[in-house]
Amino acid sequence: MTITLQSPLDMHLHLRDGAMLDLVAPLSAATFSGGLVMPNLVPPITTLDEVRRYRERILAACQEHLFTPYMTLFMRPFEHAFLEEIKDEITAIKLYPEGITTNAEGGVKNLEELHSTLEAMAELGIPLCVHGETHGFVMDREAEFLDVYRDLAEQYPTLKIIMEHITTAGAVALLDEYENLYATVTLHHLLITLDDVAGGLLRPHLFCKPIAKRPEDREALLDAALHAHPKLMFGSDSAPHPRHKKEACGCAAGIFTAPIALARLVELFEEHDALENLQPFVSDNARAIYHLTPVAKEITLIKESWRVPEIYGSGNETVVPYLAGEEISWRVV
Amino acid sequence: MTITLQSPLDMHLHLRDGAMLDLVAPLSAATFSGGLVMPNLVPPITTLDEVRRYRERILAACQEHLFTPYMTLFMRPFEHAFLEEIKDEITAIKLYPEGITTNAEGGVKNLEELHSTLEAMAELGIPLCVHGETHGFVMDREAEFLDVYRDLAEQYPTLKIIMEHITTAGAVALLDEYENLYATVTLHHLLITLDDVAGGLLRPHLFCKPIAKRPEDREALLDAALHAHPKLMFGSDSAPHPRHKKEACGCAAGIFTAPIALARLVELFEEHDALENLQPFVSDNARAIYHLTPVAKEITLIKESWRVPEIYGSGNETVVPYLAGEEISWRVV
Repeated sequence: MTITLQSPLDMHLHLRDGAMLDLVAPLSAATFSGGLVMPNLVPPITTLDEVRRYRERILAACQEHLFTPYMTLFMRPFEHAFLEEIKDEITAIKLYPEGITTNAEGGVKNLEELHSTLEAMAELGIPLCVHGETHGFVMDREAEFLDVYRDLAEQYPTLKIIMEHITTAGAVALLDEYENLYATVTLHHLLITLDDVAGGLLRPHLFCKPIAKRPEDREALLDAALHAHPKLMFGSDSAPHPRHKKEACGCAAGIFTAPIALARLVELFEEHDALENLQPFVSDNARAIYHLTPVAKEITLIKESWRVPEIYGSGNETVVPYLAGEEISWRVV
Repeated sequence: MTITLQSPLDMHLHLRDGAMLDLVAPLSAATFSGGLVMPNLVPPITTLDEVRRYRERILAACQEHLFTPYMTLFMRPFEHAFLEEIKDEITAIKLYPEGITTNAEGGVKNLEELHSTLEAMAELGIPLCVHGETHGFVMDREAEFLDVYRDLAEQYPTLKIIMEHITTAGAVALLDEYENLYATVTLHHLLITLDDVAGGLLRPHLFCKPIAKRPEDREALLDAALHAHPKLMFGSDSAPHPRHKKEACGCAAGIFTAPIALARLVELFEEHDALENLQPFVSDNARAIYHLTPVAKEITLIKESWRVPEIYGSGNETVVPYLAGEEISWRVV
């Protein structure tokens, strides 16, 4: 039994830089046709020159594969002229509320200061991607941020706003309330709740931001994904951290899913008799929302069990993948 | 500035066994007059002989201090005659729902099977201590268990029931609803929420069961403690695990607070202008509830800053304490 997907896309991807980029980019490029690459490097990507050079480094890292890095800028107040100059070389601008996640220290403190930038983005057709969390109690951060999404959607009705890596039933519901709100969801938020992170032993490799929420949240996300809600796209938020940083006291947030994401998605959609909805979820919805025409790339998976490696990489640059050591019943051919 | 406490008591204490017992028991005995010792060894303490021998090992481990280990049995269906024989050598029986916490694999699956035991305990005046969590979603486990407390309190009105290490505002409220319900609360649940465990980086040394809950829960617990609610006792739930088990992937639940608990409590009560309520919270309430007359032991603390050690012990048997490396503004003289 096989399934063939046409140009699968990962619409939220952390590729890092340097040795880590060289390690992880080919693992995404092996099974995806393209990915929306997050700009939260140190320092973040905020200029045309940085966009171009980062794209070159990504292409060099995955030169053995056909793979399109869809580039993003790290949100700052930008001039209209600059956005006009750069718009054909980026796919979106990513907004991080200050200090919320990895390398978001230079993020935005006050949405007011972005007003003219957001107006320019709406006019130029540049989508806004948002890490939507407040600084509140960890289980409430996304729910509290939904009002910000409402305000943005109302104030900028022609701006495409993508709620990144949504984790709550409330965020799913918002998709149907505002025409210009869209979302990505990760693989892991379709599978785990806080119980998996901290309900038994503490599991650092399942620790991410936004943190996995309640069972009813997971159900709502899974239901929307399995039905291929047209405003919902797959975005892995695959976020590699070196093993020694994940397994230390004070472990960093992020789950490395890139090398297993597509196979596990096929398994998940098959378990729920929803295989026919996987193509829109992992590609077609994103094409429609972002007006993308990805490079043609057929990825075929066969129903054949394999064991996920315990680590990828070697030396100091090893990363533990999600589902390390576990079996997945579908394999990329 | 000094404060002197009369025979402080820790009414929920894990002393373990072997080398760990030898390491941690003197640290409790140095600042407390006595402690209610949990029976979840491997195998658990279920016979008179085991109670006696464990008490001997505890006394041997802290022979340099005046310290009373108040012994407990691990809840099983017990005969009336056995309970009558053992009642003068134990202070309570501890009920663990099966598999909920460290070494609770042999715990109780069905409360029905305990009916005659609970009736005998009520008749003989043996208090019941309960780890009150269901197997539900991690943030709901205690809240879901409150109905079990209600049922027990109603079904056994003459049985003293202690809700151990409560973590929710709902459990605090229950104290005023049922005459025969009492509770212990830990130091760490007065200080942390889930935010401290998983809101920034992941903090294994703050991972415990029941897991720290929401800000409003912490507020309710703190308010009850600072006002020395007469049905609330201090119980540290100090739960040492070897460092290598806390800092591994899949870290065990438990926070080691014994060596710093009393000093941090003084600091906390002073911060809130509630020092006059510390004596009932750390001793008098427990004496009244359990009808205890602890050995006379004055513990004096002075307002003088000290730094908590990074670890206690050496070799394989090291334990990282709560607040490792941080300053506490009161010190036991």
